[in-house]
Amino acid sequence: MEGLCRSPRHEKALTTEKMAANVKKVQYAVRGALVLRAYEHEKTLKNNPDKLPFKRITYCNIGNPQSLGQKPITFFRQVIALTEYPALLETSGVEKLFPQDAIDRAKEFLSVGGPTGAYSESQGREHVRKDVAAFINERDGFGPNDSYANPNNIFLFDGASPAVQTSLRILLRDEKDGVMIPIPQYPLYSATIPLMGGSPISYYLDEEKNWALSPKELERAVKEAKEKGITPRGLVIINPGNPTGSILDRENMKDIIRFCHRENILLMADEVYQNNVYVQSKPFVSFKKVLSETPECKNELELLSFHSTSKGLVGECGKRGGYVEMTNIDESVKQEFYKLVSVNLCPNIIGQLMMDLVIRPPAKNGPSRALYEQETTTIYDSLKRRAELVVGKLNSMDGVTCNPSEGAMYALPQIHLPAKAVEEAKKKNLAADAMYCLELLDQTGLCVVPGSGFGQKEGTYHFRTTILPSEEQLTEVMELFSSFHKKFLEKYQ
Amino acid sequence: MEGLCRSPRHEKALTTEKMAANVKKVQYAVRGALVLRAYEHEKTLKNNPDKLPFKRITYCNIGNPQSLGQKPITFFRQVIALTEYPALLETSGVEKLFPQDAIDRAKEFLSVGGPTGAYSESQGREHVRKDVAAFINERDGFGPNDSYANPNNIFLFDGASPAVQTSLRILLRDEKDGVMIPIPQYPLYSATIPLMGGSPISYYLDEEKNWALSPKELERAVKEAKEKGITPRGLVIINPGNPTGSILDRENMKDIIRFCHRENILLMADEVYQNNVYVQSKPFVSFKKVLSETPECKNELELLSFHSTSKGLVGECGKRGGYVEMTNIDESVKQEFYKLVSVNLCPNIIGQLMMDLVIRPPAKNGPSRALYEQETTTIYDSLKRRAELVVGKLNSMDGVTCNPSEGAMYALPQIHLPAKAVEEAKKKNLAADAMYCLELLDQTGLCVVPGSGFGQKEGTYHFRTTILPSEEQLTEVMELFSSFHKKFLEKYQ
Repeated sequence: MEGLCRSPRHEKALTTEKMAANVKKVQYAVRGALVLRAYEHEKTLKNNPDKLPFKRITYCNIGNPQSLGQKPITFFRQVIALTEYPALLETSGVEKLFPQDAIDRAKEFLSVGGPTGAYSESQGREHVRKDVAAFINERDGFGPNDSYANPNNIFLFDGASPAVQTSLRILLRDEKDGVMIPIPQYPLYSATIPLMGGSPISYYLDEEKNWALSPKELERAVKEAKEKGITPRGLVIINPGNPTGSILDRENMKDIIRFCHRENILLMADEVYQNNVYVQSKPFVSFKKVLSETPECKNELELLSFHSTSKGLVGECGKRGGYVEMTNIDESVKQEFYKLVSVNLCPNIIGQLMMDLVIRPPAKNGPSRALYEQETTTIYDSLKRRAELVVGKLNSMDGVTCNPSEGAMYALPQIHLPAKAVEEAKKKNLAADAMYCLELLDQTGLCVVPGSGFGQKEGTYHFRTTILPSEEQLTEVMELFSSFHKKFLEKYQ
Repeated sequence: MEGLCRSPRHEKALTTEKMAANVKKVQYAVRGALVLRAYEHEKTLKNNPDKLPFKRITYCNIGNPQSLGQKPITFFRQVIALTEYPALLETSGVEKLFPQDAIDRAKEFLSVGGPTGAYSESQGREHVRKDVAAFINERDGFGPNDSYANPNNIFLFDGASPAVQTSLRILLRDEKDGVMIPIPQYPLYSATIPLMGGSPISYYLDEEKNWALSPKELERAVKEAKEKGITPRGLVIINPGNPTGSILDRENMKDIIRFCHRENILLMADEVYQNNVYVQSKPFVSFKKVLSETPECKNELELLSFHSTSKGLVGECGKRGGYVEMTNIDESVKQEFYKLVSVNLCPNIIGQLMMDLVIRPPAKNGPSRALYEQETTTIYDSLKRRAELVVGKLNSMDGVTCNPSEGAMYALPQIHLPAKAVEEAKKKNLAADAMYCLELLDQTGLCVVPGSGFGQKEGTYHFRTTILPSEEQLTEVMELFSSFHKKFLEKYQ
């Protein structure tokens, strides 16, 4: 009657049966089914605050500090506000509203980089890339103008994730090409490798030894891959570790470098947590630095190192700023990177400027320095206390063991689940830790990610929680964990 | 001696010979070799302002208005500055620095959406998606709360380009899957389709008829593709046209809709220039609107429509804000979109808020409205004058014919090149129009893109120039074009 059915021949152009096969393979638990259920609970609570056995959802599924109340660094936001609305710079009395170094930095950004509303070079603004190179030089103990790091080798991106994705997109030819990833790992990698058509090659971190990475395990994994006809092309290392929270030592890093060099493997160093180190005995050292100390590999090993505005003591996740530094990468390959990023025109400018601010905070003698140090120290000290509190509390729970959170923003406890719980999960067609996390969410409003989302040794169960709820909240959160866990054990005993 | 060569076995892990084949296929002229040469010239001029026969590079290769002096909309930037640095909202006297409606909007963004430093939902903030849906409803003549557009069908992205890329990534299975693209077209499409493994299917716009799109030509292109064993899965329409500047009429759009419906093809409507229409007789009508008027297809035809902060009268390219609206898309396919965008966590927040501002400018009765209207009217009137000036001047040149620039930001003249020039280019292994553009750059500093970068009928030559230099500059720019062209003809006569 309405003419809607005149064309019996029409069928859907795009269905999950008729879409790219590689897309189907992608799994991403950090924002998967559990999180969507948390959003639903949140909506329920909005309409009816008494309907659920808790008053609010606490998102411990993702390292998103500002969503849990962490305040941005004042200087950074002052500079961004002035750069976005330059009329303020001309307002009389602006120096009463903003410190002089913020005013100067905004003026510098505008005069050297131009308006924030314009596309930049595809690779990112040159002045930002110069600052990043100077930062890397200084961080690794070279002079700020040393040739060690070079702005041409820096590509800015909308966060570290698209930098990783673009790298894998260029590297991987087909499913015979493999990339070695730690188990457990951040699922960006396990999601992106099949998406780009390659094969993940798992190497296992040793939970008994504080998630250590043994070169022997790398050898084993490579051997197994080769036997399956898979060529290892890349190796991903996350240091400090996500989700493990562990930190590599220098000798270990040298072994990894030599291993990659020997096997002609591109090393991808995810170093986005380089400012999140809570153990004095294990300061962060970059792979680039250790490579510079490994003469036989120094000028040959191909290294990509990733950094971001989202982590550290800054947590500017929403800005989507990040970069990759390329070491010993073939010039013609760099041109392919350039071509690919050109298709997307450029990374967002505010993210680029935030990246600049993160690696070039207010100068030591400037008026904003004291506040900057106070803010970052407060955040750092608190993160360190929270890391200890969370791990301590988890270890005090029956059937829970957790390695120290030496760095990053997470704890990854092993939960020893009763056989009955494992059986019950099997009946529900769920991973046992997924069932645990689901019950946790439904009973307490705490949202964490099951270990199965990161990979784990067969027969073990984990979950990852961030350490990010504020200290005021955290005690309550840990009580919720603890009493839920007790009840869970009782239920399935 | 230095131990650098101890490992004779080492070979590069990543070379252009050992990289993804699809990446090799990508071509992207808008930021290709010519632009890199322009950057080089710019550096030369910086060090030695007298070394080249011109004083500055004028970038007419890309629609980047703010890089050529267009000012941002004051209200938008006021709101962003306040949202980025909320301490300003608490400053006494803030109402003297900012109009009340900017203050209110910033407060709303913060209270409804939370801090800009946090990741949002993967799909983009809900409040922004609601506003986008209301905008679409109103634009297309429905009530703001109509069910016609729905926030769940909106996905925010870092610009329209990644929205297009994600769509093609999901759609395309292998080289037997084709996507129909206009010739000439914006090279995002010709670059991305092979990158995602599919095959472009060219359909030609009719230059003689003001770049009209004829349904017969679509039929021809489909037939040819099918004969080659390629299944047409999608059809790209850019309206208003890039690079052509032409605008489709309603009947033509209906024909296209019926064609896609009959052939079970996903329609991808690139509508980023919807606010750049300079001809009163051809107002912009969205494909969604025309679909709603086509009863036999209305509830069936799958439509993706793209919009952006980068174009219009706003030109906030650096913000990287954009969205796709999905109509009649399968729920399970939407979930695949959700999964894919989750891997990248979220689009940048400032880009999301800028998208909100673009589609929800200051209210009619608010204190910022008059200035907003003045600013946008000034930009609009000027763009319209510039479109006419550029096209008029081009048509006055010997051997140049140019269709009117009815919309978007470009003119695409055909240049009738002397046989000797074509021969010379062949010797240099260049497309003849690429040689023309290269000589133009080297002699005048004007940077435009050769027609070969967009596709053109065999044996014809074009270039695309933006109409974006300021009116003060533009007369001089057109003189440069004109005198270069004369000399070029003389040289090769």
